[in-house]
Amino acid sequence: MAPSPSGVITLLTDFGLRDPFVGVMHGVILSRFPAGRVVDLSHGVAPQALDEAAFWLERSYRWFPPGSVHVAVVDPEVGTARAALVVAAHERFFVAPDNGLLGEIAHTLDAEVRHVDLERVGLGPPSRTFHGRDVFAPVAAELAAGRLPLDGVGPQGGARRLTPAAGPRVVSVDRFGNLITDIEASALAAFARPVVVVAGRELPIAGTYAEVPDQEAVALVSSFDTLEIAVRNGNASSVLGVQRGAGVFLREAAPNNRLA
Amino acid sequence: MAPSPSGVITLLTDFGLRDPFVGVMHGVILSRFPAGRVVDLSHGVAPQALDEAAFWLERSYRWFPPGSVHVAVVDPEVGTARAALVVAAHERFFVAPDNGLLGEIAHTLDAEVRHVDLERVGLGPPSRTFHGRDVFAPVAAELAAGRLPLDGVGPQGGARRLTPAAGPRVVSVDRFGNLITDIEASALAAFARPVVVVAGRELPIAGTYAEVPDQEAVALVSSFDTLEIAVRNGNASSVLGVQRGAGVFLREAAPNNRLA
Amino acid sequence: MAPSPSGVITLLTDFGLRDPFVGVMHGVILSRFPAGRVVDLSHGVAPQALDEAAFWLERSYRWFPPGSVHVAVVDPEVGTARAALVVAAHERFFVAPDNGLLGEIAHTLDAEVRHVDLERVGLGPPSRTFHGRDVFAPVAAELAAGRLPLDGVGPQGGARRLTPAAGPRVVSVDRFGNLITDIEASALAAFARPVVVVAGRELPIAGTYAEVPDQEAVALVSSFDTLEIAVRNGNASSVLGVQRGAGVFLREAAPNNRLA
Repeated sequence: MAPSPSGVITLLTDFGLRDPFVGVMHGVILSRFPAGRVVDLSHGVAPQALDEAAFWLERSYRWFPPGSVHVAVVDPEVGTARAALVVAAHERFFVAPDNGLLGEIAHTLDAEVRHVDLERVGLGPPSRTFHGRDVFAPVAAELAAGRLPLDGVGPQGGARRLTPAAGPRVVSVDRFGNLITDIEASALAAFARPVVVVAGRELPIAGTYAEVPDQEAVALVSSFDTLEIAVRNGNASSVLGVQRGAGVFLREAAPNNRLA
Repeated sequence: MAPSPSGVITLLTDFGLRDPFVGVMHGVILSRFPAGRVVDLSHGVAPQALDEAAFWLERSYRWFPPGSVHVAVVDPEVGTARAALVVAAHERFFVAPDNGLLGEIAHTLDAEVRHVDLERVGLGPPSRTFHGRDVFAPVAAELAAGRLPLDGVGPQGGARRLTPAAGPRVVSVDRFGNLITDIEASALAAFARPVVVVAGRELPIAGTYAEVPDQEAVALVSSFDTLEIAVRNGNASSVLGVQRGAGVFLREAAPNNRLA
Repeated sequence: MAPSPSGVITLLTDFGLRDPFVGVMHGVILSRFPAGRVVDLSHGVAPQALDEAAFWLERSYRWFPPGSVHVAVVDPEVGTARAALVVAAHERFFVAPDNGLLGEIAHTLDAEVRHVDLERVGLGPPSRTFHGRDVFAPVAAELAAGRLPLDGVGPQGGARRLTPAAGPRVVSVDRFGNLITDIEASALAAFARPVVVVAGRELPIAGTYAEVPDQEAVALVSSFDTLEIAVRNGNASSVLGVQRGAGVFLREAAPNNRLA
């Protein structure tokens, strides 16, 4: 069941790129596994935004080779007794703190969840504030190098899940100000003439950015298969005044609605 | 005429690094070509700024090995019928949407321009909003891996050019606030005592940042062989109140000008 | 004494990632040394902040394999006659302008300092503003490739040091707003009940972020073994109104201090 390593390791954090934290994680990995291919998936997750990290991880891993090791470090409880997890699922390894970030992945059928036993994997006591460097990077390197079998990681155990949000919402705002929601594209099928409601405004659903007039707000199916709200040649977040976390929902267009 | 691949692939986009879009492009490339070397040329192009992307691409490719594949994705028309291009020129491959970004490169002597035929290159229908992942990254990976010959890309065709700007201008503002213009350094030779005019101010031309007094504005030849306007130990964009797109020109210093 | 190259090259600059300067340095290195592994340590050093760059370099290099080549380019005097240095120390190579950035490293026991002789290393005259591309990257590539022996770099010579700061201070503000100071953790041992003073406020010292109440300011030992000031689930820089460069010191808690 354990995947055969591809040699690729991806990093997803809320560390940003201003400081050398991410660079040092690369150094730790290359020190242990010189042939490793380390890819920065993103370090721009909003600080401590577990839901945003979980969303992007779940939507992104499939674009990497099977056998890749996906490290995700958003870690508000670093320094406490929260466990470090290795999850084998979807023909890949996932390495992260046990704080809900891997909740959905750890609960997929056939997922195997291990709690890292530092002594068993040969690691000393970590610093209190940077387990990305002291725990997650070295474990990922050993997994990717094929030197650490899954049952050498530590005992099997559970994985925490995130508290479900009260309803669908904007999980991420991208560089263009597009609002990425967690409404699955497949939800559209339940409506004859669906419209999206956000910040009290009702928006039509289009096929591409180019279908709508300049500066007009519209919803469309994003490239990650959820609904996205955009303003053509503009910034939807500024224009609509909507930030990460805002509620959003689908409804049937009113019969007299010109959008329908 | 087709270059022999170096294995290096560069990425230039306006995606920023906040979201995993760039990381996912790395994943797609490594999935197809595990030995590929992917370099982020820059992802900080101003949103949809085709002229800035074209400028940096034209100024940067020569610093990479011959046979490199240079991907550039600034793509306001993504999802429409605009073509995807592969251009072989300057002993390299260039891969980008047909929106003018590759105009100058595609019109150099001996350039060969191909329009990507998705079916011929073995790609299914792309998403409507992320051709960087679905078209440009896979085509680049196949070219870099040496598995896709130029005549397997699709039919020969034309390439759009950018509408020429009304005159020389600031094409980019760098991290220090330096104003990068598109005035070729060689243009200086036409003047006995050239000065640069921007935002109604006349600036002298110096050899290095260190030649001018602290906080004083000056023009100099940038490392990419165009004129650049800088403020020593300061931010020219803030000090002069000049943004990307501002007009700028060279003229002869007045006879009584102390700058001359 | 010269280290045996690991093939890893790290880059630390104040260039930011908006423009292709860093990408072009990657290109220059890969053009000369296609098997090189180039890691971005950080490009977010505050513009021209030599002390911040020196701090991060000294704190980070040990996380990379021995034999790595560490390039650091913060270079306010680029274009002047200031020397370019290669320093062999700590089983590694360091490459940087001679402006104090490598001062401490160059003055460690057994360090060997060489001034780059452009002609001897086979480089032509560099541009006046981008020695990262024209001098430091090519020298680093040749060192990492094992083609440039230390005594081929140029003559032995001295290395400038930074003017010592008037006292301990905040050297860096990280992405979360944590204030990284240059007070060594070991300094705590000199106090029975130490407290940290910054911006007129006295802060307790905790073990982890999670030990203190939400939104409360606290000092703790950072993962780089200096004191760090944080606000749990908050931004210490904003909450305390403290920026890079601010003074900070340790003192004994007053006998009636509830923090002690």
